[in-house]
Amino acid sequence: MKKPMHILKADQFDRNFLAYLFELTDNIRRLDKSKEGQMYLQSLLNHKRAMLYFTQPSTRTFMSFQSACHILGIKSLEIRDSSTSSERKGESVEDSLQTFSSYVDLIIMRSPIAGLCDKMAQLLNSTHRPVPIINAGSGPDQHPTQALLDMYTLNRSFRKSGGFKGKTIALVGDLKRGRTVRSLSQLLMQYEGVKLLFVSPEEFKIGADLRTQLAEAPGLSFEETSNFKAAIGAADAIYMTRVQDEYDLSGESKKIDTKEFHLRLEHLPLLKKDCVIMHPFPRRDEIDPRVDQDPRAKYWRQERNGMWTRVALITNILGVDNRIIMPEL
Amino acid sequence: MKKPMHILKADQFDRNFLAYLFELTDNIRRLDKSKEGQMYLQSLLNHKRAMLYFTQPSTRTFMSFQSACHILGIKSLEIRDSSTSSERKGESVEDSLQTFSSYVDLIIMRSPIAGLCDKMAQLLNSTHRPVPIINAGSGPDQHPTQALLDMYTLNRSFRKSGGFKGKTIALVGDLKRGRTVRSLSQLLMQYEGVKLLFVSPEEFKIGADLRTQLAEAPGLSFEETSNFKAAIGAADAIYMTRVQDEYDLSGESKKIDTKEFHLRLEHLPLLKKDCVIMHPFPRRDEIDPRVDQDPRAKYWRQERNGMWTRVALITNILGVDNRIIMPEL
Amino acid sequence: MKKPMHILKADQFDRNFLAYLFELTDNIRRLDKSKEGQMYLQSLLNHKRAMLYFTQPSTRTFMSFQSACHILGIKSLEIRDSSTSSERKGESVEDSLQTFSSYVDLIIMRSPIAGLCDKMAQLLNSTHRPVPIINAGSGPDQHPTQALLDMYTLNRSFRKSGGFKGKTIALVGDLKRGRTVRSLSQLLMQYEGVKLLFVSPEEFKIGADLRTQLAEAPGLSFEETSNFKAAIGAADAIYMTRVQDEYDLSGESKKIDTKEFHLRLEHLPLLKKDCVIMHPFPRRDEIDPRVDQDPRAKYWRQERNGMWTRVALITNILGVDNRIIMPEL
Repeated sequence: MKKPMHILKADQFDRNFLAYLFELTDNIRRLDKSKEGQMYLQSLLNHKRAMLYFTQPSTRTFMSFQSACHILGIKSLEIRDSSTSSERKGESVEDSLQTFSSYVDLIIMRSPIAGLCDKMAQLLNSTHRPVPIINAGSGPDQHPTQALLDMYTLNRSFRKSGGFKGKTIALVGDLKRGRTVRSLSQLLMQYEGVKLLFVSPEEFKIGADLRTQLAEAPGLSFEETSNFKAAIGAADAIYMTRVQDEYDLSGESKKIDTKEFHLRLEHLPLLKKDCVIMHPFPRRDEIDPRVDQDPRAKYWRQERNGMWTRVALITNILGVDNRIIMPEL
Repeated sequence: MKKPMHILKADQFDRNFLAYLFELTDNIRRLDKSKEGQMYLQSLLNHKRAMLYFTQPSTRTFMSFQSACHILGIKSLEIRDSSTSSERKGESVEDSLQTFSSYVDLIIMRSPIAGLCDKMAQLLNSTHRPVPIINAGSGPDQHPTQALLDMYTLNRSFRKSGGFKGKTIALVGDLKRGRTVRSLSQLLMQYEGVKLLFVSPEEFKIGADLRTQLAEAPGLSFEETSNFKAAIGAADAIYMTRVQDEYDLSGESKKIDTKEFHLRLEHLPLLKKDCVIMHPFPRRDEIDPRVDQDPRAKYWRQERNGMWTRVALITNILGVDNRIIMPEL
Repeated sequence: MKKPMHILKADQFDRNFLAYLFELTDNIRRLDKSKEGQMYLQSLLNHKRAMLYFTQPSTRTFMSFQSACHILGIKSLEIRDSSTSSERKGESVEDSLQTFSSYVDLIIMRSPIAGLCDKMAQLLNSTHRPVPIINAGSGPDQHPTQALLDMYTLNRSFRKSGGFKGKTIALVGDLKRGRTVRSLSQLLMQYEGVKLLFVSPEEFKIGADLRTQLAEAPGLSFEETSNFKAAIGAADAIYMTRVQDEYDLSGESKKIDTKEFHLRLEHLPLLKKDCVIMHPFPRRDEIDPRVDQDPRAKYWRQERNGMWTRVALITNILGVDNRIIMPEL
């Protein structure tokens, strides 16, 4: 058996792969427009089973992946809480996961245990019946499929205006602790002529390591600022994020005033005509819900794009993507 | 896109719609009798996905709706507890629901939050991708599909003897706080020549508002009584209900003696030959389990009718009912 | 309707039935090797629904049964925790189960309530719409499908060397309280010329009742020993089990040293060349994970065999096994 392709980190995706996956996603969405196309998609993998192993709960990501499975006809087994009975009987998490792997063809996992995805990928590779693993945003690790859907949404938005080259993207909020901003920035480094504006209060600026990486990226320029209004006015895309206070040590986030970095109705006239507003969700008060009615608000479509890019990724991992690029219909 | 038809309240159903839905349900049950028919039913909506959003748990109603989805080939996403991780991250319930709506074609919801179904139906109507909502019995709100299955069961039982006209229906138990009794009474007001007997201890009599509505209903007559034996002897249908002590403020139900209003083996000889015994379930001690063996006990069929009427309703909402009335088989 | 065949106890399976089921399982695995075969399997029961009623949680057994359902196209309803809302409303467990039975064609149940499976099987037999029940390892009761998969794994392992006759099987660990050892021993009594070695510390020896049964079995011989090394050296199969400390009254298991009965790397040279190592899982420290790499370690296959034998059993119960023995492909 060919070694399976695990999806563990965003930086596994190079620019070519992204371009391929975006086209795949577009084709899948086209197929989804008719019942015939939908049934064709289901026929691709309706003989397969997946395990959704979410011992770190995330309803949003769970539902998105499960819908992706349903679209492809994949049957799913689910763990959605942090304790399983076997673990209570003293079983190691490795044994639990290997057990589940023996029932399925794919494991999609989100665990609070740092490094567990990588470890399991390695362990499974050494077994008699390895199955691919997708990291669905484990703890402090990466969240590669979030980065994928963000890139797909940007790509679609910039398509009509010549692609990424020359575009300014404002990333706003808690830039220090958000996995999303880090992964997205790393993928954007692959595109020439992009300008990134990091917009945050002093306390939430990007980390030193990311700053170094950005400085070394050849075609990309970036700026750090606390001037929200100027930044959103200059941006072709605004990527809003929430305060990541689950990483607080002692409630320090509460002392930081982020109100100035919230997108309100009064800001809409400042935005470029074709600007896109994004948010990885969940949102708190970063974006006034009334902004949802503005045609530039793309976060709900971005949400749905998550489902589509996951469908595309799964077809790729399980080797049926070739049947989508050249549909047999 | 056409505005979707949400199912929010029992009084959305008029007599014509009920008659239509009952015929639809009969046809569905007929199809279900063969594997070919079952596969035909599954083929109708196997390209669709539904979200079962049950933040107010109800295993019975959940399972009934999920089975209805399975019968139609619909894939389902589930929330079956009262907390979701996103809400824990500070997301509004509206954002959570709109997220889930972006993955599915139908939302079936039961929430403890009063008015949430109505609010979400309105919110979704204003979005780019509205999906229909079915209220599956939310909190203090209505439980329209329960009323539907009760009416279907009555309708089937009365069919051979000329329909609702001239029938006497005894409603027994906690009539004050049961949503079921209220919804059912409201639907029965649409039928002429029905007589309702409200049988309860003094403390559990129907509310003043329902009494007013009943008094104004043109063709219907009603009576309130505490004479259980006389009532069940006169009834063509007996609708038993349990004490709704979850609405107690301080255990006041315990002080009320309801024993006289329980159906026991010794009562069976008093009943009419064709009387039907119903119960919306769960039951406690209102009906002796040995009564189950009596052919007039229809509550287990009533339970199963819930599944069938939900199948019918979903085909109607998702626009494939026309393929059942005139089956293509 | 024909009385359904419930699966309640391991001793329902006689030698002929086991032989039949093993052949069925082999055929199912053969079908599973191609997408066509997999789709054929799904077509057998994709018009059926099953309830997985696991009020005694067991992730492993749950997932195995659910996968078996998926393989056959069966849609499943799930209860995976120990409380259901109806029970909270005062409903009897019998009413809950009969409710669920009205939605499905098969109930697979694991309940902590002793005797509930038997009781429900009887109750359902008396109803208008009986459905078969499979006991999935309820509490102190039997775990018949575990015995089935163990026998299947032994059978496959012994096939090349002439079957069970003359084989020595070492059963190691907590032999006193493990349901698995008891059920397996009872099935092995049906085979002539088998020798059983019960290997345990004094405190975990088999119960007097099993000892009596063994002594009376005509063709079988057995021995009780605490000499682990000698036993595993003589064995054609080693069946390792964990300490069942969930049955401890006051932590008495901790006082017993079981280290001598653990299988470690250093023991591997002692084993026969064709010996098979088995474990019903979950494992703690009975087997060093590095042993997994030895080709004689069959516990991961045994795990997967559980899924396959459950597929076979379900086809038999729901009456489509005749379509597998002589596949229509």
